[in-house]
Amino acid sequence: MTIQNVSSFAKGAWVAPGAGARNIASAITGDVIASAGNDALDVQGMLAYARDVGGPALRRMTFHDRARMLKALALHLREHRDALYELSFNTGATQADHAIDIDGGIGTMLVFASKGRKEMPDSQVFVDGEIEHLSRNGTFLGQHICTPLQGVAVHINAFNFPVWGMLEKLAPTLLAGVPAIVKPATSSCYVTELAVKIMVESNILPDGALQLVSGGLGDMLDHLTCQDAVAFTGSADTALKLRSNPKILGNSVRFTAEADSLNCSILGPDATPDTPEFELFIKEVSREMTTKAGQKCTAIRRIITPASVTEAVIDALSARLAKTAIGDPRLETTRMGALVSAGQKRDVLEKAAHLATEATRVFGDPDDFAVEGADPEKGAFVPPMLFYCDSPDTASAVHDTEAFGPVSTVMSYRDVDHAIALANRGMGSLVASVITHDTEVAREVALGAGAFHGRIYFNNRDSMKESTGHGSPLPHMVHGGPGRAGGGEELGGIRAVKHFMQRTAIQGSPDILTGVTGQWVAGATEIDAGEHPFTRKFGELAVGETLHTASRTVTLEDIEHFANFTGDTFYAHMDDAAAKRNPFFPGRVAHGYLLLSFAAGLFVEPNEGPVLANTGLDGLRFMKPVSAGDAIKVRLTVKKKTKRNDEYGEVRWHVTLTNQDDEQVAEYELLTMNAF
Amino acid sequence: MTIQNVSSFAKGAWVAPGAGARNIASAITGDVIASAGNDALDVQGMLAYARDVGGPALRRMTFHDRARMLKALALHLREHRDALYELSFNTGATQADHAIDIDGGIGTMLVFASKGRKEMPDSQVFVDGEIEHLSRNGTFLGQHICTPLQGVAVHINAFNFPVWGMLEKLAPTLLAGVPAIVKPATSSCYVTELAVKIMVESNILPDGALQLVSGGLGDMLDHLTCQDAVAFTGSADTALKLRSNPKILGNSVRFTAEADSLNCSILGPDATPDTPEFELFIKEVSREMTTKAGQKCTAIRRIITPASVTEAVIDALSARLAKTAIGDPRLETTRMGALVSAGQKRDVLEKAAHLATEATRVFGDPDDFAVEGADPEKGAFVPPMLFYCDSPDTASAVHDTEAFGPVSTVMSYRDVDHAIALANRGMGSLVASVITHDTEVAREVALGAGAFHGRIYFNNRDSMKESTGHGSPLPHMVHGGPGRAGGGEELGGIRAVKHFMQRTAIQGSPDILTGVTGQWVAGATEIDAGEHPFTRKFGELAVGETLHTASRTVTLEDIEHFANFTGDTFYAHMDDAAAKRNPFFPGRVAHGYLLLSFAAGLFVEPNEGPVLANTGLDGLRFMKPVSAGDAIKVRLTVKKKTKRNDEYGEVRWHVTLTNQDDEQVAEYELLTMNAF
Repeated sequence: MTIQNVSSFAKGAWVAPGAGARNIASAITGDVIASAGNDALDVQGMLAYARDVGGPALRRMTFHDRARMLKALALHLREHRDALYELSFNTGATQADHAIDIDGGIGTMLVFASKGRKEMPDSQVFVDGEIEHLSRNGTFLGQHICTPLQGVAVHINAFNFPVWGMLEKLAPTLLAGVPAIVKPATSSCYVTELAVKIMVESNILPDGALQLVSGGLGDMLDHLTCQDAVAFTGSADTALKLRSNPKILGNSVRFTAEADSLNCSILGPDATPDTPEFELFIKEVSREMTTKAGQKCTAIRRIITPASVTEAVIDALSARLAKTAIGDPRLETTRMGALVSAGQKRDVLEKAAHLATEATRVFGDPDDFAVEGADPEKGAFVPPMLFYCDSPDTASAVHDTEAFGPVSTVMSYRDVDHAIALANRGMGSLVASVITHDTEVAREVALGAGAFHGRIYFNNRDSMKESTGHGSPLPHMVHGGPGRAGGGEELGGIRAVKHFMQRTAIQGSPDILTGVTGQWVAGATEIDAGEHPFTRKFGELAVGETLHTASRTVTLEDIEHFANFTGDTFYAHMDDAAAKRNPFFPGRVAHGYLLLSFAAGLFVEPNEGPVLANTGLDGLRFMKPVSAGDAIKVRLTVKKKTKRNDEYGEVRWHVTLTNQDDEQVAEYELLTMNAF
Repeated sequence: MTIQNVSSFAKGAWVAPGAGARNIASAITGDVIASAGNDALDVQGMLAYARDVGGPALRRMTFHDRARMLKALALHLREHRDALYELSFNTGATQADHAIDIDGGIGTMLVFASKGRKEMPDSQVFVDGEIEHLSRNGTFLGQHICTPLQGVAVHINAFNFPVWGMLEKLAPTLLAGVPAIVKPATSSCYVTELAVKIMVESNILPDGALQLVSGGLGDMLDHLTCQDAVAFTGSADTALKLRSNPKILGNSVRFTAEADSLNCSILGPDATPDTPEFELFIKEVSREMTTKAGQKCTAIRRIITPASVTEAVIDALSARLAKTAIGDPRLETTRMGALVSAGQKRDVLEKAAHLATEATRVFGDPDDFAVEGADPEKGAFVPPMLFYCDSPDTASAVHDTEAFGPVSTVMSYRDVDHAIALANRGMGSLVASVITHDTEVAREVALGAGAFHGRIYFNNRDSMKESTGHGSPLPHMVHGGPGRAGGGEELGGIRAVKHFMQRTAIQGSPDILTGVTGQWVAGATEIDAGEHPFTRKFGELAVGETLHTASRTVTLEDIEHFANFTGDTFYAHMDDAAAKRNPFFPGRVAHGYLLLSFAAGLFVEPNEGPVLANTGLDGLRFMKPVSAGDAIKVRLTVKKKTKRNDEYGEVRWHVTLTNQDDEQVAEYELLTMNAF
């Protein structure tokens, strides 16, 4: 058998293993299959290459450019996924595990590509939150923006997801406009190397955007500055060691960590054995225990059940776990493969022995279990092991010892408060799940355990068909947890992108803010293009282009006519005495919808032209009532433009309605689609 | 003269100084005026008291309860501010400085009180961001929430703002629902003690919500857990020492720091001496140098000017600084008081001497300056000192040495890129200002220097009358900066409140999310109250209460009638052939505003009742065109209720319009004010 030389990708070139390289064994056979590491790797040169070549290239692109790049990259990876599957079997993973790691990683990248287009602007400045009004007359305003860090993101990944682990960090990093240096865990780095090769060979990424360290990082972390970031996934011990680096602390280098987590699953007090929730709970728990042979940072380590059903849970779980076929992951019959290495197997067995000092093993015997198609002496196989702890209030190991394999402990609770207290004994976890059909239980757990958990997953008969599983971090939802879990946050949509950007509070005049953000701010200079903006194509329209309409007097006949036509005969429009009794109105007033409709009548250009459709409206506020005899006029200004495809783009218009005294009566933002 | 015994406030009782107490001298006379510190302080007991008594009491309140509490507290402090002013003179601060520290602190608290009411819900769960659609049929959704940390916030404050420094951290902490232990810097802790006394004696705060350590913290930080947070302001050296604490690192205790910052101000290339910007620049810089005798973390340390005007800037600045009357801050004529202590004076003079190795002192001589009404030998007085550095590209001290007094260095730039590079040499600053009337310069600096700065302040002729000053952190805007500045964030509106809450990703069915957040989620159970919701008072209406209307057919006559009545004769409504050429429409379609108006006609209850007004509308999206002959109907559901005062509250309704095939044609949220 040939041994795969796992290269690093540094400064645009592949660097083969060299002095200091380490052998990597197959999880299934124990045979050496690869070698990785090179003490002579120029890690400072890699940082410089990322900063000087990759960063500037990425920053020249807009968020939409980068989102399109991510999509292309993900689709290219998908084309080549079979090769990744094949290689990944050696890590002990089954085809079902590959779906999480490889397809899940690609899917995560696609979600970021989509969110980047939908939720970020087609520009280089991300606008964070609303305008802050810092002055009475509006000549001085505030706006937060985010711009990319001008350094490099160092990703230090765990062994369990060699592809997802890379892509879930890479997608938000690249979308932010920051180059990455990826350092996978050595024991499965040969899979990551192939994924990087596929990406590099696609020529989709600019030079310097992605580099790979197969093996050790050397002293790279000692050279980080305030513009760099470290995103770490691994053990709490390693996290502590890395984040204690004096340069990281002294330069306030951003350091996010996903570390140990004693995740729990709580069976609701309502979920008695005759309910659909009970069966669902057994399925979720057994799946979480055995997927990736339990090598998941989100796996369920503590099973918290009402005392009255604990025995039933243990019985049902044991019965289900007994059906888990263990063996060569290439076999279609195999439900659980091997741990990644002999070292991991030793570690898991040690931790299980430690749990056994406080809990009784009620299922699974590491000295007696069947393995199909592989030699259990050579491969890193272990059986699912279920423990039961009868004194969870005084026990500690069951709450703080993470056996990173198919190992979990059942414990009983008395009432929901007790269940919450036990959950929180994890002192910070990535995820808790609660299987309940009782919304009050859900609210209690969210309030009581929220502060100790990065994610709480509720499931029941209503959602079980479409639910995504306790253990699946989704790109849309924050992944990370407080305390023991590392205190970091990853994923969570655009939140993740912001981790690689600096938020800056911008203060200045409306014109300055418009200049900085590329979005027109009320009070900024209005542009008169000399023709009706509805006659101008998407590409011709400038941000700030403004139409001022003629005015129209609203008559009592208009109000009555509109009321009768639409059926909206609300008393404030029809009954002067009743309207006067109302704290908001001086008497009968015009309908808000009448004002909106008249406004459209004032500003539309009726002839066929580049405006294709009014697609929506945001933030409408009625500020002052309009009575019969008042005259309204409209100001309509291009606030923002977003290209959607090659045919048309969205134009967001800022609109104000004013009366004959120039008082603002309404304000809103209008959305149209405009042809190119 | 009596010496003030500065007490701590621990576990609900005042604890006088004891063993280990330190003397504190007046900044003006050098006489000992106070004593603080007690080695026997029960710091672990204080943590327990906050966690067990203060936290639960605060968490029982809603965000609005806490916002009202903050407002009462701020108003109470304002009533007693004269006593604070009087005591504060001893720190060397002038009445103008008090306006920043004492009035500024109270104002900050009032802004948080206001934002808490406006931008947070009247409940215990903060809803963060939008619903995430995680499933095709909508039975499984995601929503992020924030809940208060269940520990304590330890605030470690700097000496320069004994009141603002406390209140700017306390306001978001209490609003979050987290108790605080405040540890002011010893040299001005006697002012903080008085402010705490005023607050405690008001009886506005629940027991345990606020404790005070006057003197040292002992080993308090060694006992923090994942539910605690530290917010530090002070030197980078101290920040590094504190954040290296193994418990803080090991338990992922949140640690935010505001530390050293070599803030700069850039004069735009457009701002030649004949422009209003030039004069504005001179005013801003001299004010920033001398306010609080330069003891401001946001003070301008580096003055970056176009080479062509550097001499003019030095001349104008020197002339203005020459007018700065230095002396006893109680004198009305005094423009600049003293540094806080003799120790600070020594430190500033040492740092100034270090700057002198790279720069020439062009104004101010610490051995020769006038002091009015005080003995310059006894008080901690220094004059403003202006340096000029002719080699800023190779110099380092001017970019990394913060002389925390009225000390600043002028340096020249060649072009905007060079100015940005010099600004970024600070390696992370709290604030940069740019005085320019050129929006392109503003954009370049924002993009080029944003990643190195927490705030960029632009000012020019348009905004100068209302601008708030380079050095003023505003409660609305983020305060903090990357790198040397500590990497923390404070203030910034509700962002600051989130620092003391845990964000948790919640996944579940619509009913579960509704239960957790208290806000109705589309797809959740609808409540039929048996009567029209518009007839029900604010207090009677339940979240989820729903009205389904009859349907109404939209005719071609309706469309034509509406077009002619409103004037909205847009071609998509009037010209079948033109509409067909449009990529969105099958032919002539109804106006969006016609649908909105008909919808209102369908759902309003016309008679006088608890609905007072339609105040706005959010997130309207038209999803499917409506043609003549289609029939629309409406579902209207109470999404959220927010009490506004004792007479009425805001109801947010979730509304969908569907057609005869039950396809959704539009969706929006409607706002009404409803009487109690």
